[in-house]
Amino acid sequence: MSMSGLAMELLNKMSSKFKNAKRIEGLDSNVWIEFTKLAADPSVVNLGQGLPDISLPMYIKEELSKIATTDSLNQYTRGFGHPSLVKALSCLYEKLYQNQINPDKEILVTVGAYGSLFNAIHGLIDEGDEVIIIVPFYDCYEPMVRMAGATPVFVPLRSKPVDGRKWSSSDWTLDPQELASKFNSKTKAIILNTPHNPLGKVYTREELQVIADLCIKYDTLCISDEVYEWLVYAGNKHLKIATFPGMWERTITIGSAGKTFSVTGWKLGWSIGPDHLIKHLQTVQQNTVYTCATPLQEALAHAFWIDIKRMDDPECYFNSLPKELELKRDRMVHLLESIGLKPIVPDGGYFIIADVSLMDADLSDMENNNEPYDYKFVKWMTKNKKLSAIPVSAFCNSETKLQFEKFVRFCFIKKDSTLDAAEEIFKAWSRQKS
Amino acid sequence: MSMSGLAMELLNKMSSKFKNAKRIEGLDSNVWIEFTKLAADPSVVNLGQGLPDISLPMYIKEELSKIATTDSLNQYTRGFGHPSLVKALSCLYEKLYQNQINPDKEILVTVGAYGSLFNAIHGLIDEGDEVIIIVPFYDCYEPMVRMAGATPVFVPLRSKPVDGRKWSSSDWTLDPQELASKFNSKTKAIILNTPHNPLGKVYTREELQVIADLCIKYDTLCISDEVYEWLVYAGNKHLKIATFPGMWERTITIGSAGKTFSVTGWKLGWSIGPDHLIKHLQTVQQNTVYTCATPLQEALAHAFWIDIKRMDDPECYFNSLPKELELKRDRMVHLLESIGLKPIVPDGGYFIIADVSLMDADLSDMENNNEPYDYKFVKWMTKNKKLSAIPVSAFCNSETKLQFEKFVRFCFIKKDSTLDAAEEIFKAWSRQKS
Repeated sequence: MSMSGLAMELLNKMSSKFKNAKRIEGLDSNVWIEFTKLAADPSVVNLGQGLPDISLPMYIKEELSKIATTDSLNQYTRGFGHPSLVKALSCLYEKLYQNQINPDKEILVTVGAYGSLFNAIHGLIDEGDEVIIIVPFYDCYEPMVRMAGATPVFVPLRSKPVDGRKWSSSDWTLDPQELASKFNSKTKAIILNTPHNPLGKVYTREELQVIADLCIKYDTLCISDEVYEWLVYAGNKHLKIATFPGMWERTITIGSAGKTFSVTGWKLGWSIGPDHLIKHLQTVQQNTVYTCATPLQEALAHAFWIDIKRMDDPECYFNSLPKELELKRDRMVHLLESIGLKPIVPDGGYFIIADVSLMDADLSDMENNNEPYDYKFVKWMTKNKKLSAIPVSAFCNSETKLQFEKFVRFCFIKKDSTLDAAEEIFKAWSRQKS
Repeated sequence: MSMSGLAMELLNKMSSKFKNAKRIEGLDSNVWIEFTKLAADPSVVNLGQGLPDISLPMYIKEELSKIATTDSLNQYTRGFGHPSLVKALSCLYEKLYQNQINPDKEILVTVGAYGSLFNAIHGLIDEGDEVIIIVPFYDCYEPMVRMAGATPVFVPLRSKPVDGRKWSSSDWTLDPQELASKFNSKTKAIILNTPHNPLGKVYTREELQVIADLCIKYDTLCISDEVYEWLVYAGNKHLKIATFPGMWERTITIGSAGKTFSVTGWKLGWSIGPDHLIKHLQTVQQNTVYTCATPLQEALAHAFWIDIKRMDDPECYFNSLPKELELKRDRMVHLLESIGLKPIVPDGGYFIIADVSLMDADLSDMENNNEPYDYKFVKWMTKNKKLSAIPVSAFCNSETKLQFEKFVRFCFIKKDSTLDAAEEIFKAWSRQKS
């Protein structure tokens, strides 16, 4: 129903009861909402949000299509995870953990990995706790921690000098001393993300050991966001910190159907961890959403069984998708280099970031000059070049935005024709410059 | 991974970091999880959870089946609601509210109505606030309010004496004086549920006016759970408190795809209300789950359009489902009466409750004698009679459990063969008694 601005203002003056709860104060801005809206113009080539436009595996669509016609699979299922799905997940992850995983007590199916992050933070983090977040970070970590009344403590990944070489995501590392200085008795958890979004960094055994040692020394939980676990490129290996000695009992590992099978719209994820932690996430689940969609969970279980049975086969989606993406990554690297940029070559994930200040875009007529450079750049590029991306400072806390504001993130889980269109835009732009 | 009880105990002693956040303390028990597990035995006739086993409308299954095969409809959509779904919802509810509803700002699609309740409470209710809850109540209201750090204030529905007449859900009313006594300056909201679960009460215009007057007098929000809005039986009419003068600006009205189209497993619901309230629910959404499943939202939008176009037609599901259910209600009334019970005849919803103490079940050998009578009765009945139901004291706070512990809730959105099986059980039991 419509209400004039003035009437609204009066209403708000009239009633303090219409105000938000304090816990969400200042948490209303969101990069996805802002930039997805911008990119909604169909003439824009969208390399922004991590939204695959590649062909999906036939079997995952077909399973859902079949399941949709079964009445009982359109009704409620078990709240903590559909039985056939938690069974498939336990079977898969037992192989990876080389240890038994109880499907009922050590796995929780959630509304996306996003839901797992929320359940973990809401169920385990108290007011006054500190939570260490590595910068840059997937943007929801910070508001989720703040919504729990806790204090995020930031520590940046820093790049080594690379001189003439290609710049790689592995050049970005934590300084062990600096990281250690962030831990104290109030530290309740650290949020880890490997493979990393937006950098594409795949943490090495040595790097994870430093984090594990600190978690154990300071008796700290680890929330390990591993949604890109299958998407690692030649020469790299994804390792699970939960398998390090002393870490299982203090780690929640988070996975995603959206990333595993390129079905981001299914909004299914999972948390894996010890019963004594997972049970608190379950309590949050039963008091927030109660259960996840049944037909999607059943279809996902079927898809998992297909690929679990052929894990050593190159056709297994866990193997074929990273192969397909590695070619797209290489193409994007080449494209960005060909127009004079120096991208940070990712070892995992489906994003690539590059310093765009070298593009010499004239942003002087952009409104809102208080915004970071990359926000203005992406808005300018979306409007003037019909190409969208995501500003990397959106993955930073306010103090570190300056450090990253020259970087922009491009998503490359895109079909060839989309990448062709992006290439044309970049090349025309580059010709214009020279 | 397995861990002995002793090892667990040691671990818990070792680390206070493994403890739940205070906000979920004591909120881990849940009636659905307990009783759904009990009813999972396939030999049990399940009249417990509100889980339809009737035939679903063909078109809703077919729409999902078709949509599943379109790649782009398996990817992320707009976080606050898939564009085609919020458009359909605004079109539908504009008819019911007789007023414009902005699909982007006055509607939020959530993970079930459950998700709407959580978003509303988490986004609007602060620590120290009071929230009025009418007893009996859908069980999640209380822990959700407690999780927000607020105080639930309970007010019971009370029954008039009915003498020889049939007992009706409309005999259960709020005492206006008693209700008024619960409001004060700390009252942030009242949670209303009409048609009511578990009683089946459909609030009248006069009853709703009493609530609306108090909301306005005490400047209080109203969270109106109307998930059974279409399921009202002859002689009754569902009214929306948000359409009462002065109420739109202070009311969040909650609806459910699961109840509207009998697809409880889709976990889609929605909140409708003024921009100045909905925006806070949106902030919660973007920091908890971000978005809902795309293929289900698209299929739901298609189903809505089919029925919006034939709303005056008896074949419209909004009209045909209550007709189908009214026959089932009447059958259940007759069945319960035939074995000597006195059910409370519901005017809406798909549950019927009855005082089961008349069944003279011998519960003396039931474990856990501290449980309310109805908990023991349902466990006993599930085990010994292979019939399950839900104890009504699960819908009560600890102080009012005694008032309702003789009542059990039966779900009747069941196909004839399920009701036949229940009938056989009841009749054999009744013969045994006499």
